[in-house]
Amino acid sequence: MGLPMATRLVPHADVAGFDPLDSSLGKARAAGVMPSGTPAAASAGAGIVVVAVRTLADVEAALFGPGGAIDALDPGAVVVLTSTIGAPGAQDVAARCARHDVRLLDAPVSGGPLRAASGDLLMLLGGDGETVAAARTVVDLLASSVVVVGDRPGDGQAMKAVNQLLCGVHIAAAAEALALARGLGIDPTSALDALAAGAASSFMLANRGPRIVEALAGGSPEVLSRLDIFVKDMGIVAEAGRQAGVALPVAAAAEQLYRLGEVAGLASSDDSTVATLLGREVTAAKAPTPSGRPA
Amino acid sequence: MGLPMATRLVPHADVAGFDPLDSSLGKARAAGVMPSGTPAAASAGAGIVVVAVRTLADVEAALFGPGGAIDALDPGAVVVLTSTIGAPGAQDVAARCARHDVRLLDAPVSGGPLRAASGDLLMLLGGDGETVAAARTVVDLLASSVVVVGDRPGDGQAMKAVNQLLCGVHIAAAAEALALARGLGIDPTSALDALAAGAASSFMLANRGPRIVEALAGGSPEVLSRLDIFVKDMGIVAEAGRQAGVALPVAAAAEQLYRLGEVAGLASSDDSTVATLLGREVTAAKAPTPSGRPA
Repeated sequence: MGLPMATRLVPHADVAGFDPLDSSLGKARAAGVMPSGTPAAASAGAGIVVVAVRTLADVEAALFGPGGAIDALDPGAVVVLTSTIGAPGAQDVAARCARHDVRLLDAPVSGGPLRAASGDLLMLLGGDGETVAAARTVVDLLASSVVVVGDRPGDGQAMKAVNQLLCGVHIAAAAEALALARGLGIDPTSALDALAAGAASSFMLANRGPRIVEALAGGSPEVLSRLDIFVKDMGIVAEAGRQAGVALPVAAAAEQLYRLGEVAGLASSDDSTVATLLGREVTAAKAPTPSGRPA
Repeated sequence: MGLPMATRLVPHADVAGFDPLDSSLGKARAAGVMPSGTPAAASAGAGIVVVAVRTLADVEAALFGPGGAIDALDPGAVVVLTSTIGAPGAQDVAARCARHDVRLLDAPVSGGPLRAASGDLLMLLGGDGETVAAARTVVDLLASSVVVVGDRPGDGQAMKAVNQLLCGVHIAAAAEALALARGLGIDPTSALDALAAGAASSFMLANRGPRIVEALAGGSPEVLSRLDIFVKDMGIVAEAGRQAGVALPVAAAAEQLYRLGEVAGLASSDDSTVATLLGREVTAAKAPTPSGRPA
């Protein structure tokens, strides 16, 4: 979501950006973002740096790797970390930043790229009052809903894990429900209509439902949210549960479903495609072998 | 939900009712329902009989047991079966009714007692056009949303299983999410507020969330939906998955969570109390043994 966020900031500030993909840098230039050759070059002289990458390893590379941002930042600068990397990761990154007198605002987001471009994200903050205040302008441009969860880096990540538990389970449940409907001979689109308004409803059923139906019908839904995002995020949820001493059997089953999707080669497919793992046509299951006899 | 449904019908028809509990019969009388000593007595001369009991065994007792309704019914009468008992059960009951020239309308409902009393249920019908038409007056008084899923008994049950998969998983996910929030040191009520409007939202999170928070705080939430209802319904979901050849790993984990709740003595508690199985205070987990040394 880095490019939509950067584009959102352009009318309000001088924005420089780095992305390892040349094509993304080209789009950034077209959107009014000054493209840079390294994270350090993009961050030189900046008071606020927004990091929007996928994994903890990506965060570490962007900040502390060769050409990383950390050496280019002045003391007192704030890094707004919008990635979902788990509380221990955010705490570790914050401590490494502090050694350079750089402050970390733990600020994972929820909402997807479309809402990022319109400043309509949910942002969950973990940081002290001064750090939040220093980043407030950028936070308010990116997010329409801001929740200060606690005053330490990691607090935002903890709340994001709770959020992702529900999102990941709800998508998996929608996939199971619509696959079951199809398996029982109920048209999945009719099932979705019947379910959407009642006690079975969820944001994710409405949002992913049509793409799940498309995937179950043999289509390839547009990739609006990669499946391997939930492989990562449900892993973070599981680790948070271990840390807190809380049993999470339903989340664990959902995590395994996303992992099975990754094993099946769906890592970069839309997460709605997990539904294709669950069933097949009953008629196919009952089909005789080519010799005409059951196997 | 039998009494709220019967009460709903009173202004529009002569309603006789049977309930094994004397206290329910007293309430029925107060509500204008003529109390009867057996299902047969309540059904004598009736063109339409509504069955609203919990399990397949309860349905069989009400229709075919001693004093059961079936022998009192005239040929052509319609039994509206609002219970969730699974498609095979409904098919079997329909076949047994047919031997007495009685028609079964498979009509499981969703919505809870409050909505039952105001005629605001979702009703999922499996039955042919003539049977649906014969029961239409009663159906329209009980349900504000009516979906004709298919023309055979069992079709309504199939759709209800899909509905219950989502409801059961969503309640379990809400329980896990709020237990995780508490375990990570986030106030569950604040977490609920932060989650309710975003991508993590669901009808069940909003509906059960406050009762889950109450249960996590050591309270005993009012019983608005017994936990063992979902032990039964998730068992029906699992059986439907087997029948359809569809894998349902997340629903299976939720089923086990409700079964653990039953084992823990929570069968007649509100289903929100499953949350109490998942975690304990981290401080409690770290507390030393009475001798002062870790165990």
